[in-house]
Amino acid sequence: MTRTSLAHFNCSAARAFDLIGDKWSLLIIRDAFYGISTFSAFRSRLGMTGNVLSSRLDHLVSSGILLKVQEKPDTDRYRYVLSESGKSLFPILVAFMQWGDQWISGAGNEPVQLLEKKSRRPVGAVVLKSASGKQLKPADVTYEPGPGADENTRHLFSLARDALNE
Amino acid sequence: MTRTSLAHFNCSAARAFDLIGDKWSLLIIRDAFYGISTFSAFRSRLGMTGNVLSSRLDHLVSSGILLKVQEKPDTDRYRYVLSESGKSLFPILVAFMQWGDQWISGAGNEPVQLLEKKSRRPVGAVVLKSASGKQLKPADVTYEPGPGADENTRHLFSLARDALNE
Repeated sequence: MTRTSLAHFNCSAARAFDLIGDKWSLLIIRDAFYGISTFSAFRSRLGMTGNVLSSRLDHLVSSGILLKVQEKPDTDRYRYVLSESGKSLFPILVAFMQWGDQWISGAGNEPVQLLEKKSRRPVGAVVLKSASGKQLKPADVTYEPGPGADENTRHLFSLARDALNE
Repeated sequence: MTRTSLAHFNCSAARAFDLIGDKWSLLIIRDAFYGISTFSAFRSRLGMTGNVLSSRLDHLVSSGILLKVQEKPDTDRYRYVLSESGKSLFPILVAFMQWGDQWISGAGNEPVQLLEKKSRRPVGAVVLKSASGKQLKPADVTYEPGPGADENTRHLFSLARDALNE
């Protein structure tokens, strides 16, 4: 496994990829949203080795995405449940599923449906919207250095797009 | 690198992770949204070896996410640009950035700001909404086998959550 850290990137997306940008971590998080919480349930569903699962669970716990909760006092049975930061990965996971539905599984062949519990209606598509509620495409947005931009980020954004590609 | 295929999973999210669930692919896609398109520009920005970059670009092209476009006839200069399926990864990439802003970089320390070009106002948060426009949390949704569910998926969903965790 390449475990090169991206933590030095001055970019919140790269920092997020650094924590959960591998397929096993993403699968564990997906299953956690389904309510899976025990080591044995993750292992039997995901078909990964105990070692890989163990290292990924430890990593997600140390990253604060999963909480490791003792099932009862004085037992060594634990459950892994999503923390607040883990729960806020929800739109990302749903967006991956919707993208896979559209571009891989294909319309009419979706393996899983996501319904609002109360209304029993399918959920909407995860999209980016403007402050006024208009759906935004990649060409509708622009990127600027933020308050946490370092020297390098400021420099890169000062260059024109075409210049970046020389 | 673990390159075990997840393509056999009866799950659109797993199928998506299989294509782009690694940090290098995600970084390349992030840069493609910034307008980066040449091999040398990707390499100098991402600091990955030519071999790793080459294999990831080839993989993204064969997955249909990037298009490899000859710059001019009879040259061997190419640009890598997002296809339609690549462009529809936009909400996922923005959601990763927003999650990293919130949970890693922290409020007031965002390296990059995403603005609507026209209004110059910050974009909204990528969220999941119901058909009627209400923001949905993980506890507000339920999962059902879809039209493309296989025997195994149907069986799993027929079990109660607790049973899955025994």
